[in-house]
Amino acid sequence: MTILPSEHEPRDVYRLMTGIVVPRPIAFVSTVSPDGVRNLAPFSFFTAVSGDPPVLCFCPLNRGAGARRKDTLINIEATKEFVVNIVSEDMAPGMNICSADFPPDVDEFEASGLTPVPSDVVTPPRVGESRAAMECRLLQVVHVSPRPLGGSLVLGEILRFHILDELFEDFRIDPEGLRPIARMGGSTYARTTDRFDLPRPELPLR
Amino acid sequence: MTILPSEHEPRDVYRLMTGIVVPRPIAFVSTVSPDGVRNLAPFSFFTAVSGDPPVLCFCPLNRGAGARRKDTLINIEATKEFVVNIVSEDMAPGMNICSADFPPDVDEFEASGLTPVPSDVVTPPRVGESRAAMECRLLQVVHVSPRPLGGSLVLGEILRFHILDELFEDFRIDPEGLRPIARMGGSTYARTTDRFDLPRPELPLR
Repeated sequence: MTILPSEHEPRDVYRLMTGIVVPRPIAFVSTVSPDGVRNLAPFSFFTAVSGDPPVLCFCPLNRGAGARRKDTLINIEATKEFVVNIVSEDMAPGMNICSADFPPDVDEFEASGLTPVPSDVVTPPRVGESRAAMECRLLQVVHVSPRPLGGSLVLGEILRFHILDELFEDFRIDPEGLRPIARMGGSTYARTTDRFDLPRPELPLR
Repeated sequence: MTILPSEHEPRDVYRLMTGIVVPRPIAFVSTVSPDGVRNLAPFSFFTAVSGDPPVLCFCPLNRGAGARRKDTLINIEATKEFVVNIVSEDMAPGMNICSADFPPDVDEFEASGLTPVPSDVVTPPRVGESRAAMECRLLQVVHVSPRPLGGSLVLGEILRFHILDELFEDFRIDPEGLRPIARMGGSTYARTTDRFDLPRPELPLR
């Protein structure tokens, strides 16, 4: 079947996209407001962008009928700093608490019980429970759409990687030890336990 | 452990990123060159960006010591059109052939044996074997870094969704029927067979 986005409700088109672009890795982003309030929120519109320099991006959507910008985006535009924490399976309950629409004066580290650990070069703390985290400096924000369910693209350069020692071997990460979870459509998540290898072919193909 | 990207080889930093930002969904992108040569290539730096309008992005890296732009990016900058096809498990061998570094005059539909199906509103065909595909018009290219392993961000608006009828129910997509595969670090892929649900909490938390 063929679906023309212009003929349907934005909510339905969004639901469709989030069922098709799967599985989505989760950026669990910590920021601090100019007043010093710590914020922690998960975003599954998230990808790596460039290897040199190392750059990632995530995309906060505008929230509710008023198309409010999320606290994470407001904090990053003000302070230019954030940390992307990776969510392992055992952190799912804490992450899920942080997906609630708390008012901006709520410290989501306190609300979730997750542990703030001081970062090396940015003000926002990283999540102590995360087995991998990346301290980032804002490179650029691209505002794509101001509508409700519209979004912005936040590009950040990675200044520091923090990785649980036992997961690291020659710049490879043990996926069994990282145990990342990912978003599927609706309220469904996926584990990455079912893996296989597929070496890239060399030319000429045999 | 803490790793400063500036103290390591870009190749190692890239390897580290691709082991941490996981699992990554795969955009299998079809384009056509101004001369009419069809191109088909997989990209795992890929995410949804905005729901209204529906926008996605993927990030081609520069290739090799000369930091060449990939054919996909060259074609999109020239023609402003592309299709993102979703890769189900049974398509993995065909997709993998298209990850080889073919010269620009090779038609990857022919090389892989995958089936070109005419699109509704863009020139590049979609992949007939894909259970979901999205016809896109270029919105913007953001060149993030011109270095080898540097990359660009390609933002596209989705003009048409094509979905296998039996996977669609009220704008939800059946993940068991879609069976998408995703990239992990190195040459490892993940299936999305191991899933669980986690409803978003309502405030106040109970």
